[in-house]
Order: sequence, then C-alpha cells, then structure tokens
Amino acid sequence: MSDNVYIAVHGGAGFHERKYEKEIKHALQRACNVALSNLGSKHSSALTMVEDAISSLEDDEHLNAGYGSNLTLDGTVECDAAIMSGKSGCFGSVGAVAGVKNPIRLARAVLDHSSIPSPIGRIPPLTLVSEGARQFALSQPSSAHLVSRESLVSPQAEERWRVWKCRFASSDPSSLSGNLNDIQDTVGAVAWHESDGMAAGVSSGGLLLKYPGRIGEAAVFGAGCWAQEASDVEQGMEMACSISGTGEYIIRAMLARRLGEAFEKGAGNSDGDDPHEVLHGVLNDQFWNMRRGRGEPDPSVGVLLLTRENDGRARLWCAFTTPTMAIAYVSSKNPKAKAIILRRPQNITLGDDKPCIYITGISL
Amino acid sequence: MSDNVYIAVHGGAGFHERKYEKEIKHALQRACNVALSNLGSKHSSALTMVEDAISSLEDDEHLNAGYGSNLTLDGTVECDAAIMSGKSGCFGSVGAVAGVKNPIRLARAVLDHSSIPSPIGRIPPLTLVSEGARQFALSQPSSAHLVSRESLVSPQAEERWRVWKCRFASSDPSSLSGNLNDIQDTVGAVAWHESDGMAAGVSSGGLLLKYPGRIGEAAVFGAGCWAQEASDVEQGMEMACSISGTGEYIIRAMLARRLGEAFEKGAGNSDGDDPHEVLHGVLNDQFWNMRRGRGEPDPSVGVLLLTRENDGRARLWCAFTTPTMAIAYVSSKNPKAKAIILRRPQNITLGDDKPCIYITGISL
Repeated sequence: MSDNVYIAVHGGAGFHERKYEKEIKHALQRACNVALSNLGSKHSSALTMVEDAISSLEDDEHLNAGYGSNLTLDGTVECDAAIMSGKSGCFGSVGAVAGVKNPIRLARAVLDHSSIPSPIGRIPPLTLVSEGARQFALSQPSSAHLVSRESLVSPQAEERWRVWKCRFASSDPSSLSGNLNDIQDTVGAVAWHESDGMAAGVSSGGLLLKYPGRIGEAAVFGAGCWAQEASDVEQGMEMACSISGTGEYIIRAMLARRLGEAFEKGAGNSDGDDPHEVLHGVLNDQFWNMRRGRGEPDPSVGVLLLTRENDGRARLWCAFTTPTMAIAYVSSKNPKAKAIILRRPQNITLGDDKPCIYITGISL
Repeated sequence: MSDNVYIAVHGGAGFHERKYEKEIKHALQRACNVALSNLGSKHSSALTMVEDAISSLEDDEHLNAGYGSNLTLDGTVECDAAIMSGKSGCFGSVGAVAGVKNPIRLARAVLDHSSIPSPIGRIPPLTLVSEGARQFALSQPSSAHLVSRESLVSPQAEERWRVWKCRFASSDPSSLSGNLNDIQDTVGAVAWHESDGMAAGVSSGGLLLKYPGRIGEAAVFGAGCWAQEASDVEQGMEMACSISGTGEYIIRAMLARRLGEAFEKGAGNSDGDDPHEVLHGVLNDQFWNMRRGRGEPDPSVGVLLLTRENDGRARLWCAFTTPTMAIAYVSSKNPKAKAIILRRPQNITLGDDKPCIYITGISL
C-alpha cells in the first residue's frame, strides 16, 4: 500500500446494546480493512474506499443497511444509499431499492454514469428509486449484485419486526419496552485519498415499520452525506461527513450540506477554523432548535466528519445526540483499524432547552 | 365566495409553441377557476386551492404532469409531485409514481398523514415513491384516484417519445431539430388564503426519456416548492414559490428553500424588501453561476413566486431563463382569471458570463 489515505466509518447513532458491542466493533474494523486492502492500484481513490467500506458494513447483519436492514411495515427490506466526491462534486443515490445486495455500489454506478456525456443532451439522474433503480443496475457494467428480496432479511431483523408490528397493530405504547427509533444504525464512511481528496457515503435500511417507498436521508442530495474541497486554499478546510439519525428531520435540515456551507462560510474567521464550533453551531441552530421549535422533543442525529487542513493535518470528529455512536478509523500512517463505541456521558445535567450534543475530536 | 384569497399557477418554463398557446392559456385559467370554485366551505384553504389547481393542470394533456406527461425511456408515465404549507411547515411528496391520476392529491395525503400522531412514535414520511406510494394511496381515505398506467399516456406524448427514442437509439444529435430539454413544462401553483396563509405545490412528468425511477425536483423537499410565513411580523414577507426547469440542477441548488432563506435573511435590510432583487440574487449566485462553474452552459429554470407584505399587499413574480413561461392568476378581488405566455425579449444582448434571467412583477 503506497497511497496516502485516511478512512473512517460509522455504524450509526442510536443505542448500541453491550451484548453486540464486540460484533459491531469487528464489523467496523473489517470495513476499514476492506477499504485499505484494495489500495495501491492505479484506480484507488477515496470514492472507492468509501464504496468498499460501506459494502462491507452492508453485508453485516448487526447493522441497519443491506443484509439485516430494518423491515418495512409489510416485512420487506428497502434500502437507501448515497455517495459523493468532494473533488468533482458528483453525487449518486438510490432510494427504496429492494433485491440489491449492496445499495452503495448502485449509488456509485449512478454517480459514475453522471460523468458520461449524452449526445442528445440527456441530463443524468442524481437519484433513482425502487424498481427503476434495480433496472438501472442491470444496464450498467459496474452494476450492483442483484439478489432475491428474501435473502436480505436476517432472522434478527425479522424477529424485531414481528415484535414491533404486533405493538403497532395494538397501538399500545405500554405493551413493550424500548423505543422504536433507537433502532436506526445507518452506516456510512468518510475518506481522503491523495488522488481524489474527500469522499463521503451513507447507506440505510431506514426506520423499522416504515411505509414501503419511504425515502430517508440516505437517498437525498445534501441530507445524509457531503464532501467538498476547500473553497479557499489559503484558509479553508476540506471536509466530508456522513450522517445518521431520524431521516425526515435530517432532510428538513439538509444537514450534510449545511455542514459543508458552514465550513465554507467559516473559512478565514476564527469560528470557522474550529470544526468543534462549526459542528456545535450547525447542530444547535439548524437541527436541535428547529426540531424543538416544532414541538419534537428528541431529535436524534449522529455526524461523522473528516477534516483536512491546508498543512495536511487530518482530524476526525464525531457529534451525536443519542446515547451511543459506533465508529472506526484507520490511515496509511496507522494501518491498524481502531473501533470505538462512543457513549455520551450520563452525568451531564443540562437545562431543558439545551441540546445534549456530545462532540469529540480525534487526531489521525 | 367569501374568502380573501390569491392564487397563481404556471405551466412551466420552457419553449411554448405558438400553435398550442390557446390551449395552454385555457388550461391555466381553468385551473384558477377550479381553485376558486371550491371556496366558501369551512375547509377551504390555500393548501386545497393549490391541490385543486394542480389537479386540474395534471388532467390537461398539453402540460407535462399527470395525463400527457413525458414518457420514460421505456415508454411509461412516472410522476413527481410535492405540496407545502407555509403556516404549518408541513410537506408531502411522491416520486416516480405510476398509475395515479393526480399525483398532487397523493402528495397532499402524505402531508395530511404527517399531522396524525403515532402512538408508538413512528415518524411520518416526507416522501413516498413508486409502488409504495401507490400502496399508500390505497390505505388513505383521502387517497388519489388509481388508474391504469396506460390511461396516463397521451397520443401526443407517445409520438414525441417515439421520435426522441429513435434519436436516442441512433445517438445522432443532427437527426432531428429541437432540444430534448425544451420539453419540461412542470406545472405548479402558489396561493394565499386568509385561513392558512401561503401554500405552494409542483407536479411533473419529468424529463423525456428519463430512466424509470428517476426522482426530479418536484419530489424533493426544498427543491421544487416552498412556502413560509414571515419570520418577523414587523419587517418580513410571507412567500410561496413553485419551480420548473432542469430538475437535477434545481435539486443541487435546493432552489425553493434558498429563495425562502433569502426572504428570511433579507427581512429588514433594503435588498430583502425587494423580491426582484432577491430573485435575481438567488438565481444568479445559487443557480446560474454554480451551473456555469461546472461547465454546464444553459441551466434552465422558471420560478413563480407569490409574496405578501405586512400591509396585505400581494404581488406575483415570475423569473425564468428559458424562452417562455406560461402563467395565470386570479384573486377574490379580481375573480376573472388572467393567463399570459411570458416571452423573454429576444433583443437583449448580454455578455457570455451574464445570465439571461428575465424577471417580471405583477400587482394582484
């Protein structure tokens, strides 16, 4: 491996049970290792690292993406995924797609397709959904692997669906413990590669008991992932982010793109140089206060953010409002993947009007 | 009719052939009249006026929405539609939906559903697509009328598809005159009603020869329509907008929401009080320059904007980069619907780096 690279992945913001902690950490480390293992070829890039890492996470039954995804109200798996290149600004996503083993590879095929000029001036799509997305996979050489719909349903997801479907049918909130919205665990990755700079991606099975055809943040441009080059070489910072949480709220906040904008606007002023301040400002103003203002008490979100300053120093940031967020990271300088389940300190007491946003920074 | 209301509709920004001018004007006037005809009941509202007006436009074969939509690459009709209330901030949309007579009514059903609390904390969807959206229609009392897929294909749309499909297969740009992207004609409406303030909606058959499953701006939150109350009663302006043009570019610019933000930010400063300046600023900075910067020479867009100042004065604005944009408007004060095909003056000469944005304002 000769490339100079950084990659980090997440297994979502939510509530990670201690009994699966080991499996989740392994899944995240494995994803980092898969992303590193394909380096060295002339085609290696941040985009491909993100695609490979997320594919690996999608294949793991403990995470809510690809195999093992949350089931829809009628018991099927429907996935959303998106990928973006900071260098080209290209984006591709798929939504509510069934029977595709790795939705992120299909999102990548949509992105790659957008760089092929059409002789008759056809505008390439940003987002393809449902059966149309699956048909597109068949028409592309770099297509995602098609599988039967049933093969993506894990026994664990099916059991969880059975329990909550029953609760939904009785509409009785007291019949079971736990919270429906804890089970989100969207996965994602952010990477930097010397060849193509920043890239970001996200993939999700969506909310448990969602309506079939529901599109979440992982399918929507500017919502679930964002990557950009520095707007100003002297002052700016490259960035890539991947977001997990309650999709509808994240779409309304256009959260990924807002983060990108905050880094652009901040370039050159004192706050803009501090990703901690930028994260706190955007999550507080654009997400927490806006949701609270609409009477929604617990907006849930987790952000994995990679920044790289002009001097080449890369840092990883993780900000979340949920009890836990699971991440892993690795670089060409430190090629042993490190996985952590971040837990928000329990003993913090805040006023009712203060958001419980926990932010941590890691030097890479 | 006792309500105090304003409503305006558009038949899209594009190139409206003179031979269909009469039919298009009639379709737009009819939509205004339909919206007015249902007033007076206790349920009348801006949202319902927008829904009724767009439904009427969808039923007209001369416009690219509902019956008569552009056909996909494989010859089917797949529609996007969205609707938003400025008062509640509620939004509903559908994407790539086939076999639904009025996609805007289905988007309205998604919006209405979002105000029903779930006992188990299920988050209501913002967007439903494809077959899932059609299934949702069946489950809702206020569902859209389901029809056969074939019944939405007009002879004219089929003929246009045949011609362009042939051109696409031969990949020969010289084999026919005309431009594939002229045929857009997304429809939309903006309204104000004393009961619920501003509302906006948009509905589209999308790009001719689009991939099945492609999602355009009319399905995406913040892209194709936006409505909001004044952020500051003293200084601000209520607004609603509906947007037509090249969907992927409009999504990338998140254009409808950007316009809303510009009115919020502008409230109180001199530029923010002038919708002409706001429109020009947003279209120039957020749309034209950004697309040009990516080497795309002719970004196409049309905006219909309704503003209402604190003194109750309502104004209609129309801004577009295409040769024509078709609009109509009516109010309780002036209940005779007026339709216009706006044509950009041909004799304007601008530098290559200047956008050809034509903006006009109409006092209502």
